Amino acid sequence: MTQGLTERLKKIAERSERKLPALTDIRRGLHRHPEAGWTEFRTTGVVVNRLRELGYRVETGSACVHPDAVRGWPEDAVVRESRAQAGDLARDIEVPGAVGILERGDGPTVALRFDMDATEVSESDDPAHPPVAQGFASGRPAVMHACGHDAHVTIGLGAAELLAEDPDWRGRVKLLFQPAEEGGRGAHPMVEAGVVDDADYFACLHMGGPTLPLGEVALEATHFLSSVKMEARFRGVASHAGGAPERGRNALLAACQATLALHSLPRNGQGATFVNVGVLNAGTGTNVVPSDALMKYEVRGGTDEICELMEEGARRCLSGAATLQGVEVETEITGRTIGAKSDNEMKDHLAWIAGSSPVDFRVHDARPLGGGEDATYFMRRVQERGGKSLYFLLGGSTPTGHHTSTFDVDERALAHGAMLMAGMVLRLTGSGA
Amino acid sequence: MTQGLTERLKKIAERSERKLPALTDIRRGLHRHPEAGWTEFRTTGVVVNRLRELGYRVETGSACVHPDAVRGWPEDAVVRESRAQAGDLARDIEVPGAVGILERGDGPTVALRFDMDATEVSESDDPAHPPVAQGFASGRPAVMHACGHDAHVTIGLGAAELLAEDPDWRGRVKLLFQPAEEGGRGAHPMVEAGVVDDADYFACLHMGGPTLPLGEVALEATHFLSSVKMEARFRGVASHAGGAPERGRNALLAACQATLALHSLPRNGQGATFVNVGVLNAGTGTNVVPSDALMKYEVRGGTDEICELMEEGARRCLSGAATLQGVEVETEITGRTIGAKSDNEMKDHLAWIAGSSPVDFRVHDARPLGGGEDATYFMRRVQERGGKSLYFLLGGSTPTGHHTSTFDVDERALAHGAMLMAGMVLRLTGSGA
Amino acid sequence: MTQGLTERLKKIAERSERKLPALTDIRRGLHRHPEAGWTEFRTTGVVVNRLRELGYRVETGSACVHPDAVRGWPEDAVVRESRAQAGDLARDIEVPGAVGILERGDGPTVALRFDMDATEVSESDDPAHPPVAQGFASGRPAVMHACGHDAHVTIGLGAAELLAEDPDWRGRVKLLFQPAEEGGRGAHPMVEAGVVDDADYFACLHMGGPTLPLGEVALEATHFLSSVKMEARFRGVASHAGGAPERGRNALLAACQATLALHSLPRNGQGATFVNVGVLNAGTGTNVVPSDALMKYEVRGGTDEICELMEEGARRCLSGAATLQGVEVETEITGRTIGAKSDNEMKDHLAWIAGSSPVDFRVHDARPLGGGEDATYFMRRVQERGGKSLYFLLGGSTPTGHHTSTFDVDERALAHGAMLMAGMVLRLTGSGA
Amino acid sequence: MTQGLTERLKKIAERSERKLPALTDIRRGLHRHPEAGWTEFRTTGVVVNRLRELGYRVETGSACVHPDAVRGWPEDAVVRESRAQAGDLARDIEVPGAVGILERGDGPTVALRFDMDATEVSESDDPAHPPVAQGFASGRPAVMHACGHDAHVTIGLGAAELLAEDPDWRGRVKLLFQPAEEGGRGAHPMVEAGVVDDADYFACLHMGGPTLPLGEVALEATHFLSSVKMEARFRGVASHAGGAPERGRNALLAACQATLALHSLPRNGQGATFVNVGVLNAGTGTNVVPSDALMKYEVRGGTDEICELMEEGARRCLSGAATLQGVEVETEITGRTIGAKSDNEMKDHLAWIAGSSPVDFRVHDARPLGGGEDATYFMRRVQERGGKSLYFLLGGSTPTGHHTSTFDVDERALAHGAMLMAGMVLRLTGSGA
Repeated sequence: MTQGLTERLKKIAERSERKLPALTDIRRGLHRHPEAGWTEFRTTGVVVNRLRELGYRVETGSACVHPDAVRGWPEDAVVRESRAQAGDLARDIEVPGAVGILERGDGPTVALRFDMDATEVSESDDPAHPPVAQGFASGRPAVMHACGHDAHVTIGLGAAELLAEDPDWRGRVKLLFQPAEEGGRGAHPMVEAGVVDDADYFACLHMGGPTLPLGEVALEATHFLSSVKMEARFRGVASHAGGAPERGRNALLAACQATLALHSLPRNGQGATFVNVGVLNAGTGTNVVPSDALMKYEVRGGTDEICELMEEGARRCLSGAATLQGVEVETEITGRTIGAKSDNEMKDHLAWIAGSSPVDFRVHDARPLGGGEDATYFMRRVQERGGKSLYFLLGGSTPTGHHTSTFDVDERALAHGAMLMAGMVLRLTGSGA
Repeated sequence: MTQGLTERLKKIAERSERKLPALTDIRRGLHRHPEAGWTEFRTTGVVVNRLRELGYRVETGSACVHPDAVRGWPEDAVVRESRAQAGDLARDIEVPGAVGILERGDGPTVALRFDMDATEVSESDDPAHPPVAQGFASGRPAVMHACGHDAHVTIGLGAAELLAEDPDWRGRVKLLFQPAEEGGRGAHPMVEAGVVDDADYFACLHMGGPTLPLGEVALEATHFLSSVKMEARFRGVASHAGGAPERGRNALLAACQATLALHSLPRNGQGATFVNVGVLNAGTGTNVVPSDALMKYEVRGGTDEICELMEEGARRCLSGAATLQGVEVETEITGRTIGAKSDNEMKDHLAWIAGSSPVDFRVHDARPLGGGEDATYFMRRVQERGGKSLYFLLGGSTPTGHHTSTFDVDERALAHGAMLMAGMVLRLTGSGA
Repeated sequence: MTQGLTERLKKIAERSERKLPALTDIRRGLHRHPEAGWTEFRTTGVVVNRLRELGYRVETGSACVHPDAVRGWPEDAVVRESRAQAGDLARDIEVPGAVGILERGDGPTVALRFDMDATEVSESDDPAHPPVAQGFASGRPAVMHACGHDAHVTIGLGAAELLAEDPDWRGRVKLLFQPAEEGGRGAHPMVEAGVVDDADYFACLHMGGPTLPLGEVALEATHFLSSVKMEARFRGVASHAGGAPERGRNALLAACQATLALHSLPRNGQGATFVNVGVLNAGTGTNVVPSDALMKYEVRGGTDEICELMEEGARRCLSGAATLQGVEVETEITGRTIGAKSDNEMKDHLAWIAGSSPVDFRVHDARPLGGGEDATYFMRRVQERGGKSLYFLLGGSTPTGHHTSTFDVDERALAHGAMLMAGMVLRLTGSGA
Repeated sequence: MTQGLTERLKKIAERSERKLPALTDIRRGLHRHPEAGWTEFRTTGVVVNRLRELGYRVETGSACVHPDAVRGWPEDAVVRESRAQAGDLARDIEVPGAVGILERGDGPTVALRFDMDATEVSESDDPAHPPVAQGFASGRPAVMHACGHDAHVTIGLGAAELLAEDPDWRGRVKLLFQPAEEGGRGAHPMVEAGVVDDADYFACLHMGGPTLPLGEVALEATHFLSSVKMEARFRGVASHAGGAPERGRNALLAACQATLALHSLPRNGQGATFVNVGVLNAGTGTNVVPSDALMKYEVRGGTDEICELMEEGARRCLSGAATLQGVEVETEITGRTIGAKSDNEMKDHLAWIAGSSPVDFRVHDARPLGGGEDATYFMRRVQERGGKSLYFLLGGSTPTGHHTSTFDVDERALAHGAMLMAGMVLRLTGSGA
């Protein structure tokens, strides 16, 4: 059967290459309309419509995203605005996120995950930046697909089509289109909704960094950082800054001291730590002692234990800063990521696929992810129930690094990704050795 | 003639009292529609229409506000939005601000100034707060008449009516309705447009603080603080906070350290100093090293010299904080106030008016203003050209202090103010001794 | 009798001038051997010996300084070292401070106070600095008579001599030589020891600032700031900064954030505020997370109420900073000054003396002190018991300002001061009108 | 011959065990008299005397420590004091540091390095802390052998004795007793003096951390951090904190903001970073604006490149903080460590020795060092000249971690260490196997 699969991989690779213009169009449409976490109404609409065209059964809403587990939901006005901009595409979308299911007789269930959200980065307007040069740069201020999720969604739809066209596999594929990966918010409520409880295998990919060029694959991403995302609201008392500053309680100063304290949290001799105050909004008028401040921040650790130590330290920072200025503070956890480990068996399958495909992939064993990922919630749930999980990296992003304003992907990677994902399904459903 | 004036003051006081319900309506309408500095389109429209009804010649636009001297102009979107909310009232208003002129034969020119802008404070929603209880609380988020300028405008329109109805004075009155007093932005361009270059006398008032109850007057406000309002924009480099923080340049951290440095500027043994970072907005996403930060801040000094020392210190703070984090910073001056001194001759006139009116005013010689005021630009210009100036305080604000969310005025003060202002015109135009 | 006193004043002034070389010697000896607060063993020895030579009864020890009220006592090693350097002069001095008493029959008791301590400033080594040029600069590192107390002590000894030589007054004079004025530590325990409980009159002087030249007197110092001096000790946990920083609790970081918070305490619309972290010592080795930090700091207010508000704010700063870093903090009050007001009757006496003396003094009514002073404890105690108090300023310090490394006094002021003090005693003991 | 060496190892191990009481005495004497970097006069004296007793030729002074390469030399007073406390032992010691040389005919040269300095930590006075319980706790305030160098020196003297007693090896042994390892100061000037230029082999050891118990050995320490130690002196202007704070330039505030900036230097996605402000001393008196501040700090990086990035960031922090407060700053590099790698051939030799000795060592391949070490200068120099280097870890420190106030070693490790070092010489001089 192995030879059979090799043959079929070749065909899948050819078909995938032929689809590249169409995939490119999809990706550019998504890139032009980036949607930040929990506002992926348009993206979900595009995905749902396409999956239905291809014959997939589609689940959305609470079947797919458990409402009680949702964290970091944006303000109503933001959600309304996104929904409005999505227009008809969002009509039946209660909450971003969708699962497409295709069954082909008896066989194992393979779940593949693709994340959909954009990042809060303003896209470069440099005429040399390809999305600008070719007219598909972000049409929204301060939101951009700077982490390649537009490519991930496109790869998911490409794999969906390849699998729908291939009659020869047996089993079930579940394509998970996840909202709100940034901030570690979307995976957990999908896991809580049970979408991978019936999965025998789970796989996902991420566009690799600048050191993984087009045509290369890392079989495993490692060093998933544990992370916690938080918001703090300081509440003080406003007063006239020139007439009676002594009657004020300065929330902005509290936030500044909390920020410096957070960034001064000690490094750790046992492993990596990271900390970031990503957003600070405080005050109203120049001559008013600021009574309110909102901070969004995160801490990360190389292990769950280190992350917990950082989280504990962060709590002290917030509480101490509030005391310092005599203001109140409330903190809320808006997202969390945990660690996880890919299964060697899955890596072996991917190595075989990558090695057997007509694309002459250069294969690396492992590369550090350099960040947090909530796909780890899917990975752990599947592994806890006896299944196998994989998180791999695909070469082809441009050299400027994720989350920068000039991030871009080499679109030829879209065909690579769709082929690898479809190939994994064929392999895992036992369609060949 | 003195007795004649005493008689006429009595009549003016009576008429002013009868107008109180109408003045109250005007004030509440203004209070419900507060407009921050340079967005007083609706307020200007209300003023212009009323002045024209009363027979005043009205000047607006560049005749009244010199475009080259305008500082601290808001973002276009904010201006557009305010203009849209003002609707028809703003139709012919190019820029906020208006001057109403009434001439009655030969005689001196008296300029009276009334400021129109609201403050960036969110009004209390406490049911016991009178504007809430009586249904005229601010209809806009985060903008409120928390400094009594709604009362000032109403007093100006009340005085306009009293003077229009009184046939017996000779000379010219110019009623200056000034935008953007908060932040020290509006007076200077009106002075540069020449609106007081022909004035022999200048007077203005401010609702006094909690220690000046209804029925009391302070003949002179003292301790005008010199002040400078500034904005700083820090520009760094964004990067992924968990993957490559070392590639970022953190604008938020620079702003936090600048804030602490500004608030730590030394006190001064020679007089008062104040400093406030009123607004700080920085960053986009929780996991992105913040590349941009906007700070709005001010320094004040008991004298022009002390203020200059603070301004110089502030420059060091901004520049040092930028160096510290390796980011760029640009600063811009958005407003400025200077010191000034009322003329004793004007105080004497007011003392006579207050003492001769049927309202049994309790009269104080002087009270500190406890803040900056750009009316001082009018005062100095008039004095430099040989005229006399006055800045007095009128009792009747509620006890919670200016710029607090529960600030309010006792509306009986509206009739007091209109009467005192009209009385000053009668007195200064020599209508009686 | 008035004429009689005028005559005698003339003689006293002449005698005082003749003593100038001797007074200059005394002052330079003191200047060469400056002693910081509570270590004035040598100075006390010099004073005690001289008072005894002049026939004064001298009290020292607990009769003069109440042990239970002593605050801010230095470390034992410092005291031992000072005592050792004083040598024989300190033999019988248990604690710095002395009271010299001279009685001349029935009459009122007049207490005069002279403070003895130096400041923790390093004296300039500029050859043009007169104490360097003339060889009497401070012989100790980081201690200097930079506030003119060497002149005060000399004036006290000069007045002691003038009074001892004058046979014609009746009453009792008490010369209070006070330790530890800097830091507001020495006056209170002398008051508690009862040294002014029998005083009908109290007077003291201070060398005025740069704007009060030689030959001028301000009858009253005003604007005594209320102040509190405090020490805080942070205690954290040391750890290896490169191996296990996460096990440390950083006392130095806590102190830095407390410092910034203290300096950011809000200004006050009701009056002056000052704050200073004057000393910070933290940490041991470069590669050890610092477990200990000592801060010495002070807050001041234009009134006792403002000072209390600052003190309350300071407590929050310390406590919050400790929380922030997870360390412990203990604070201790080491000194305090309060406000006080001179009696007009006393000012009138001084005006008469200054005006009647052969020195053609230029007399000012009042000048702000621009600092805190614990002589106010004496002033208040005497006033509470029905007596009268005076705090005046004597011209003659050099233009560089108190507490600077080039501070100096014009030594001709020594004769002025001795004469004015002796004159006050004559006047107050009713020796003439 | 292998059996021969196994036999001799057994004898050496037995002799080493018999010497344990004497070694324990030596170690306790060193522990009682800890000497910080560059003040190891007493320790050097003890070492020199003992080496001479054993028949070693001893080199000291510039033959051993190149004067031009010395960094981080302490203040003269500190050196004088240490020299004084060392008494006769320091008589001929010009600079701390010594090399003992023993030759036995032709054969390779083996250099062994033992560091001598103590850390600036105050030893615990807990009665349960063994050095307290057994009366050999540090006799000096704020200095303590908290990194086990007392054990290292003792092991060195133990090995010296074992080798002197053994007639059967051929070659040359150089025992390097290095000062000032803490702060990365002492190795570089010894390398520059050429002490390892003739070495074929270099080895050193460090007492391992809490996870390496007695009886265990890690053949290689890894993760040597690159580090830079620096001092900064801020110079501002003093002034009276209550009278004229505006005339001051606050060096203490500059140091506080520099400290927060340093601790906020970004983490690095490519490897570990560490930062520590270990010492901050600023200011003189509570009421004086502090004109001087001294900071001692360090940065570290997982690679030389990361360390350089941190060093560059640190420069910005210092410069920006000085600008912020308008003060001057001078910085000086006082120490530096670099990375290095042990040679596998040397690890193999050690594995053989550890495995062949009667002590049933549990052998680990590698453990991270978790800090910086300047022994890497020796390692690199030997390797650059074609030799082989080794840095291994010996089990036996108590569980509280290096640089803590309760650090201690299990003294049985002294015999282990001496035996392993002597064994390595036998092995490397080809005396067997």
